[in-house]
Amino acid sequence: MRIKLTVSYDGTNFCGWQRQKNGVSIQEVIETALSTVTQEKIKIVGSGRTDAGVHALGQVAHFDTESKIPPEKFCYALNAVLPPEIKILKSERVSENFNATRTAKKKTYRYLTYISNVELPLKERYAFMLEKNVDLKKMINASKIFIGTHDFKCFNASGGGALTTVRTVYSIKITKKGNEISFSVCGNGFLYNMVRIMVGALIKVGEGKATEKDLLNMLETGKRPFNYKTLPAKGLTLVSVKY
Amino acid sequence: MRIKLTVSYDGTNFCGWQRQKNGVSIQEVIETALSTVTQEKIKIVGSGRTDAGVHALGQVAHFDTESKIPPEKFCYALNAVLPPEIKILKSERVSENFNATRTAKKKTYRYLTYISNVELPLKERYAFMLEKNVDLKKMINASKIFIGTHDFKCFNASGGGALTTVRTVYSIKITKKGNEISFSVCGNGFLYNMVRIMVGALIKVGEGKATEKDLLNMLETGKRPFNYKTLPAKGLTLVSVKY
Repeated sequence: MRIKLTVSYDGTNFCGWQRQKNGVSIQEVIETALSTVTQEKIKIVGSGRTDAGVHALGQVAHFDTESKIPPEKFCYALNAVLPPEIKILKSERVSENFNATRTAKKKTYRYLTYISNVELPLKERYAFMLEKNVDLKKMINASKIFIGTHDFKCFNASGGGALTTVRTVYSIKITKKGNEISFSVCGNGFLYNMVRIMVGALIKVGEGKATEKDLLNMLETGKRPFNYKTLPAKGLTLVSVKY
Repeated sequence: MRIKLTVSYDGTNFCGWQRQKNGVSIQEVIETALSTVTQEKIKIVGSGRTDAGVHALGQVAHFDTESKIPPEKFCYALNAVLPPEIKILKSERVSENFNATRTAKKKTYRYLTYISNVELPLKERYAFMLEKNVDLKKMINASKIFIGTHDFKCFNASGGGALTTVRTVYSIKITKKGNEISFSVCGNGFLYNMVRIMVGALIKVGEGKATEKDLLNMLETGKRPFNYKTLPAKGLTLVSVKY
């Protein structure tokens, strides 16, 4: 039978979702836990990779098993052997047609920043510091440029290996609470580092260092000026995957 | 001259504020940074100890120095050599009458909990999990018992070494946001583990396992039943110290 897992993790000390030669991956830790629990050698399939240091509130994965463990009990069995940084929020039986990667329809990522002139130890783990205040309204207006189906070639880091760079962004919500600014981006899928580059570009607009026209130009020409950086992984969290 | 520091730290990997034989303390890390920056051997005095694993948003400490570094620049100099887990939010010159321990008038601690049937990796570092919902109203009502000047003997863990167990609690604010419940406790000072034991007792009331009368009885008799636990350090944060 096929089981769907909803997984949350603190990615700080892992080399990302996918198995790597150097470093421990989330996938590997869950597969090891599964083999402990089922005594089978199981490979899990995630909705997509998350990079080293990226977190998840609701990553989704599936696997096939012959185990007699009731589907909804897998989370308890796995959590008992998983480290505190990785926990299964839900386990459920799905049909063989379900594929965590291929049938994913909608993903939501959140990028968290905070405004401060000093690194704040209690925020640093999950957010990126902005040294100066940024113009929220400008960023919200500029974010509308990304909504819809576009060729996001210029927001694609090299090494992603995607067949096409066309993606659909459904919504971008930018909210401020105290000194925290959160960017919530929902789309049908994202290119390698796409959210981290897009949010970086929006922040440039908020800082007054780029205009909406600059972003439009990047989308149209597919060319990204050298000074548009990819924001650090730690601020990024995969919030949910819908099927 | 005497300098006052306002310090924030993630206490997870430290043995607490105070120097210990086993493990690295916050005090020690800051003193090492100070000696790097000033070339002097400096001892800092904190507003009080925080235990292993307890965090701070606004711990206060002072030290004396002959250094020519301008008082308000100490934070930048220190932050450049401090690890990401410990940062100085502010440095300022104070009079010789200022003493971080002895002239402290008011301290505020926050204890953070979250309700979930699964450990949540992105909350676990700074909050304690409650497996079942608790009655907020009951806890708020019961918290009023602690307000004022009382002998908190029964909320004092052994080993604290305080001369008197009488303390004044100014306010306790209990708020819920989503699945998080925060307890904010303000007083003129706290006994060893006092906040962690008090919040544990309030949660017992919220769970329906204790009544206001039980808490009153504990205050009056000074005796704590064996099943009143000290909550884990990770949920506790020293928010501010007023002088």
